[in-house]
Parts: sequence; C-alpha cells; structure tokens
Amino acid sequence: MVHEATSRRPIRLAIIGVGKIARDQHLPAIAADPRFELVAAVSRNAVVDGVPNYHDIAALLAERDDLDAVSICTPPVGRASIAMAAIDAGLDVMMEKPPAATLSEVARIEEHAVAAGRTLFATWHSREAAGVAPARGWLADRKVEHVSIAWREDIRRWHPGQDWILEAGGFGVFDPGINALSIATRILPGAWTVENAVLRVPEGRMSPLAADLGMRCGNIPATAVFDFLQEGPQTWDIVVETDGGRLTLRMGGSILDIDGSVTEAPDAEYAGLYARFAELVAGRRSDVDITPLRLVADAFLVGRRETLPPFAW
Amino acid sequence: MVHEATSRRPIRLAIIGVGKIARDQHLPAIAADPRFELVAAVSRNAVVDGVPNYHDIAALLAERDDLDAVSICTPPVGRASIAMAAIDAGLDVMMEKPPAATLSEVARIEEHAVAAGRTLFATWHSREAAGVAPARGWLADRKVEHVSIAWREDIRRWHPGQDWILEAGGFGVFDPGINALSIATRILPGAWTVENAVLRVPEGRMSPLAADLGMRCGNIPATAVFDFLQEGPQTWDIVVETDGGRLTLRMGGSILDIDGSVTEAPDAEYAGLYARFAELVAGRRSDVDITPLRLVADAFLVGRRETLPPFAW
Repeated sequence: MVHEATSRRPIRLAIIGVGKIARDQHLPAIAADPRFELVAAVSRNAVVDGVPNYHDIAALLAERDDLDAVSICTPPVGRASIAMAAIDAGLDVMMEKPPAATLSEVARIEEHAVAAGRTLFATWHSREAAGVAPARGWLADRKVEHVSIAWREDIRRWHPGQDWILEAGGFGVFDPGINALSIATRILPGAWTVENAVLRVPEGRMSPLAADLGMRCGNIPATAVFDFLQEGPQTWDIVVETDGGRLTLRMGGSILDIDGSVTEAPDAEYAGLYARFAELVAGRRSDVDITPLRLVADAFLVGRRETLPPFAW
Repeated sequence: MVHEATSRRPIRLAIIGVGKIARDQHLPAIAADPRFELVAAVSRNAVVDGVPNYHDIAALLAERDDLDAVSICTPPVGRASIAMAAIDAGLDVMMEKPPAATLSEVARIEEHAVAAGRTLFATWHSREAAGVAPARGWLADRKVEHVSIAWREDIRRWHPGQDWILEAGGFGVFDPGINALSIATRILPGAWTVENAVLRVPEGRMSPLAADLGMRCGNIPATAVFDFLQEGPQTWDIVVETDGGRLTLRMGGSILDIDGSVTEAPDAEYAGLYARFAELVAGRRSDVDITPLRLVADAFLVGRRETLPPFAW
C-alpha cells in the first residue's frame, strides 16, 4: 500500500521544449495543478523563470536525480530520442500531439515504456475540449448516419513564417487537421478507415496546404475538408447527422450544438490533460492511442496529389 | 477434444482473386497440401478449372455453406470489404501481401476477426524464402552494426502495362520493396523506424518509381534503395554487417551467403504460407504483423518528393 504522505507528494516534472504551446498552455496548467511541481525546464533557446534551465535532456538527466516525469512539447521530429532517454532514466512521459513524426517511432517509444514499466501518455488536447465528452455521451445512444469535418484556418495567422510545417514530416494542414481527427475518433470510437484522399501541395513545398478525406467510421461515411488558407472567419466544426438529430461541435469542440440547443464552457483542455496524466501515473497505466496519426499516415499513403501555386508568407 | 476424423478433414477453401499470383503460386501450393481442399474460386473475369466459380464473394457466400476459409489474392484496394464479408460468414481468412491498402483497414479487419473468433493470417510470402529462417537464427547470436537493402527490378518486365501500381494507393516501387521490409523485419525483429525518405515520382504519376529510406532497427542504422527501372541483372539483396561477419540474403531471400559460404534451397514460399495457415486455423490463432506496411506508410508520411521524367511503358 502507498502511504498517504507518498501518494500526496506532487509529481516532480520537467518541461522539455519551451515554445508557444508550452508558455500558453502547459506552464499555466502545471502551475494550477497541485498534483504537479515544475522543477526544471529544457530548451535550446528559451528560459522558464523560477526553475533551473537545461540546454538538452542529456544535461537535465546528468544533473538531476529528483525527477518523476517529463512533459515533451518539442516538434514531433526528434521527439523519439527524447522520450527514450526519459524512459531510460526511469521517468514517466507525457507528449504533446502528435506523439512522434511516424507511427513506427510511436510504436518504439510505447514498447520501450511498457518494457520499463513507465507511464506514457500521448496527449490529444482537442479531446479535452468542453463539448467532446457530452458529445460522445449523446452519440452513444443514437444511430449515426453521416459525419462531416470542416477545419479551415489561416496558416499566416497561426503559424507565421513557420516553414517547417510545409516541409516533409511537417504535416502541413494535417497539423491542425489531426485535432479534428482526434475529436472525431473520440466521439465515435468505431473502426475509422481512410478510403481516399486528395492532398493539395504548393509548388516547391512538401506538405499539403489543403486536403479532402473520404473516410468511414465502420459503415458510416465521413468526410473531412482541411484548408490552411482560410481568411476571415475561422472554422473548426464537426457535424454528425443521426436518427435523433444533428450534433455540431464548433470552435474546435468548445461549443456543442444539438439541434440548435447550444452549450459552451470555458477552455480547460490542458487542465484536463494534466489531470489525466496524474491519474495514469497513480495507476501505473499508459494511454497511447495512435488512431488520429494512423489516419493521417493512411491519407499520405493513398492520397492523390495535386499541385497548388507557390505559397509565400 | 476434437475427434481424429474431424481434425483430419481438410480445410475447405475458396480462392478469391484469380490473377497471376493465384495461378503461379496459390493454386499449386493448395493442390500440394493435403490439409486443404480447394472447393471454389471467385473472380470477375477468370475461371479455375475443376471447381465451381463465382463472380464475387456475395455470390459465393449466398450459394455455399460448406466453406471453412478463404484465401484473398485480389489487389489491396477493396480487400477490406471482402475480408469483412468472409469473417461475417464465419470463415477463416488468409490474405496476400500487403493485407490492405491502409493501416486503418488492416486494424478494422483484425478487430473484426478477433471479435468473431476467426483466424486471420496476413501473409508476407518473402518471409518464407529459404534463407530467412537460418538468417534470423544466425543473427540472433551476433551484434548487428549495419543493414543495407538494395531492391532493383524492372517494372516493365514484372508488371507490364499495370498502370494501377503507379496510381495513388498502388504503392509504386514499394509493391516489391515491401517484400524486402518484410524480410528485414523478420530477421531483425527489433524496433524498426523510418527516419527519412526520398520518393521519386514520375511526372503525371502518383506513386514512386524509386525511393531511398533512412531507417533504424533500434539503434542500428539501416538503409534501403528501391528502384523500379533496373534493366539487365535484377537485384533483391539484404546485407547485414555484424561483429561476427557479413550476412547477405540474395535473390529475395532464397540464397544465404555468410562470409562467402553460400546455401541455396528451392523455392517453397507459398507451401510455407499454407502450412502456417493450417497451423493457425488448428490453433484458433491469428498472425497479423503490420510492421512492413507501417514502414511504408511512414515513408510516405515523412518522405521528400522528387519528380522524375514522365514514365511510359
């Protein structure tokens, strides 16, 4: 049995990768959760005030033996070696989405965590949006007839100058689009498959600025339209037609509209992620659902490519 | 307990998809194996002599209730619905490689087979090549330092006029290349990952005619060069450098060369596959290893694309 005193000691956490998402979301969520204590940060070129900072995970692990866990917020390419090193050091690991650049890397990290008996949590922050859990509950009692996803945002507004996102491995419009897939596969946890895809890639770039997917959830048809060139109003909607009415998740899942009856709740996505990580650590369990990343990989595998005019910021 | 008489009754099998691979390999292997009895064939435009023939799986299942299993040899696109229908009819299923066009389809078929308690065997015929099992055994005792794969063949000789192979979802040079990956991941069953890839696609086509992969097996570097425009001698080689010498599998795995000591055995790949299927059915087990297909999907996900001149037959 775990002693009360032990079970109540906070999880001593280092954050790895101190970019926009770490500052905007992770650091406030960690500060607000008494189950966690931020004890270090790792970044090549940024500093978190109030804790010791390290240049890379090797320096962190060489100097600190008081850590319980790391939260990895670096870009997906290169994520695997960081996660492997943390697991080797006996730490539990939480990872921003997508968990790695490839499915084979995720499998390798997961096998390593299982072998070492560590908790691994591959997060999908959009699944914690306020409307997602009630949507899942409502849909469980109904016969779904059709799903349509429209994820249209302006790359220049949300990722200004970030050329990496249009490089090979940068996911392009699937960087936001995978959030839609993470919600869709949570509210309808059936067997999702990709049947066809069109990937529209600007001349001279590697990853798509727009994509259309034809999918199925079991036998239910599902479509997704992803567009990274949306000016004016931004759209992050999932519409589910059922025999009991139409359910719409708007604004990335924060607004739930069931036949015109709207509920909205404040954003608490990252609070939800850290609460879940604490539960997983306490239970010595992992949560690694590759489904959204697998759908993206399948879209690249079977997708027809079309060429768009050159893109400039 | 199963009665002797029952356990010795052959598996009553229908073959679905009667193309070149079915005629060249499957039908002779089935005829030579007393554990199987071919009782039907399904094809849109071909006929197998000596058994009733059906136009599609729906017609087969509507008219026959005496089947135990099907062996699916159709192209990968469309494979999933055939496999699902067979499982729904209570049949065990064997599938040519690759098991489906996407990873999500393979997962759906596998979940369905597990839920129905049916045997599902996703075959990789190259793993049954004569040199593969001894190579795996020899490598198990040695420290591997490097793996290099060279798979160079002439698309005009082996796939004349088959435009589908260069369409989206046709796999291009990965259609043969996945055989190399199936061997490599069998003889070295560590955690294989794709780190980078270059995919060379002819202008106006969708799938690559050539590809280079940078991979790792655990921490061991591995490279693959796939080329579909190889004239003259054809090459299907895997070279493994170890602390105990160099192992080379040539000609797709049929020739094993360990530091110049060569062993060669006659082709028995499909005999091996059917023997394994009979074992799996007898044991009520499945064998669905997605590793080779996952590496291909990852190569498409992170691969840089380069354009080749137009390709004509």
